[in-house]
Amino acid sequence: MTEPEFLELLRALPLHPGALGLTDDAARLAGTFVVTTDTLVEGVHFLPDDPPADVAWKLVAVNLSDLAAKGARPVAVLLNYPLSEDGWDRAFVAGLEEALRTLDVGLLGGDTVALPAGAPRVLTLTAFGEGPAPSRSGARPGDALWVTGTIGNAGAGLALLQGRLARNPHVGDYTSELIDAYRRPQPRLEEGRLLRPLVEAMMDVSDGLLIDAARLAAASGLAVTIELRNVPRSVAYDIYMGHEFDGLLAAATAGDDYELLFAASARAALPVLAARLGHFTPGAGLTLTFDGQPIPLPDKLGWLHG
Amino acid sequence: MTEPEFLELLRALPLHPGALGLTDDAARLAGTFVVTTDTLVEGVHFLPDDPPADVAWKLVAVNLSDLAAKGARPVAVLLNYPLSEDGWDRAFVAGLEEALRTLDVGLLGGDTVALPAGAPRVLTLTAFGEGPAPSRSGARPGDALWVTGTIGNAGAGLALLQGRLARNPHVGDYTSELIDAYRRPQPRLEEGRLLRPLVEAMMDVSDGLLIDAARLAAASGLAVTIELRNVPRSVAYDIYMGHEFDGLLAAATAGDDYELLFAASARAALPVLAARLGHFTPGAGLTLTFDGQPIPLPDKLGWLHG
Repeated sequence: MTEPEFLELLRALPLHPGALGLTDDAARLAGTFVVTTDTLVEGVHFLPDDPPADVAWKLVAVNLSDLAAKGARPVAVLLNYPLSEDGWDRAFVAGLEEALRTLDVGLLGGDTVALPAGAPRVLTLTAFGEGPAPSRSGARPGDALWVTGTIGNAGAGLALLQGRLARNPHVGDYTSELIDAYRRPQPRLEEGRLLRPLVEAMMDVSDGLLIDAARLAAASGLAVTIELRNVPRSVAYDIYMGHEFDGLLAAATAGDDYELLFAASARAALPVLAARLGHFTPGAGLTLTFDGQPIPLPDKLGWLHG
Repeated sequence: MTEPEFLELLRALPLHPGALGLTDDAARLAGTFVVTTDTLVEGVHFLPDDPPADVAWKLVAVNLSDLAAKGARPVAVLLNYPLSEDGWDRAFVAGLEEALRTLDVGLLGGDTVALPAGAPRVLTLTAFGEGPAPSRSGARPGDALWVTGTIGNAGAGLALLQGRLARNPHVGDYTSELIDAYRRPQPRLEEGRLLRPLVEAMMDVSDGLLIDAARLAAASGLAVTIELRNVPRSVAYDIYMGHEFDGLLAAATAGDDYELLFAASARAALPVLAARLGHFTPGAGLTLTFDGQPIPLPDKLGWLHG
């Protein structure tokens, strides 16, 4: 079953009012409390030979990225952890400590389990934050679609790690930048807090810029148009992937970016660096343009596994 | 690495004040909010051919059992779910709906993932409750150790399902009672709310009566003595397992009971059916007696996987 099919079934169940109809990555618990949870699976969301400390960092970061999209301050996390060998577990805890200290959030509790021999690791983190949260459904016709930072680095990093993209021995720092983007995403917590009063709708880019933009528009009952040329990339990305059509499309569909995607006035004076990707209009669906000309949507807008 | 070793590492990390030093199954979030999380693994916590609806029930029930031990009212749950075949997923959602409706709690959100082919299912639920919670560390010397309901049914049910215990064709209802106890545990929510004002310390029995009693005593800095003859069993249990030493010890170490284990005055007039197992004294450790005579502790007091 796909995630949309499963969510459709779940929507018929008794929902807590804070579930917001299961349309958002974060839920409201009580007062200004926000809660979000993400599961990472070995071989799906991280590579079996990724350093355990990086897996811990990523587990915290992807959850805190959902809080960032709410402009919320992280308060606490719960960890559900599969115990394994001593070395892996110790390195994981070291990475967890670094993440908790750097991102200024405390461990609240959790659960440990034993997995059957040979089973891929499945790790869950649940994060709590505080702050009056913008929804992802408040975009208005005429709003611009914006994104913080650059897009595509993590996808290129994964391609390098999987050998789908050949390493260029002359640009080691750029290679590391791309791999770091995949293994050590940075939740945009400060940016989220600064943007919160200025945005109509906001979410983080986890599954891919195009699919997440389509979701943001759908949640607001609007259509959205994105100009592929406007997708912001890093120098490292362009060196490896180029800045022509294929490279731009790869960036826009790769996912794992954990940048903030939001609707705000096209003339907003934003307190953070952000690129204007396109705009919202009445209607439904995603339109993609390249040099101003509408083009067919690619088969894959991003990842559907959530 | 074992769970105690892992928890020792985690205690050196930045902890949220509500973590209570990671000594409890539930944490305090804000005000009177209580949160708990449990992960179930296919082949470890449930059998691959357990009906999916029962797996859903158990996932909700084992989490709500931790809330029951806090005397808390369930408020909401988060679900982390590995998508699989249509039939399994649909049956799971049906069981989830039954559990949510019966136990009167709403779905707040969650996450879905895809697992690699052939990987065992790993399911996490996080439950939120409300109520001023008793700790598990308030037992006083002289308090009695009590437990609600009966112990051992789930362990005998698992033995039946695994073929380690032969089915008796003449006692079908008792067979079903034991299997149901394993697949459909009942969280003692009402009992927990009634007991809350009367107990000094409380937890649920998940890993085994003896190991959980030892933990309750350790959390209060006390020793505890348990008379094996006092372990309450069902008629179904005694028919299958007998009421001699081996049967009593099996009940006391099987786990998955989800009854409430608590410290209260030996003369307390309790509003729920509960058996007096023994008593707390100054010191440390667990003493087991049989017909009043101290006996060596078994090698295995319960499950260590959490």
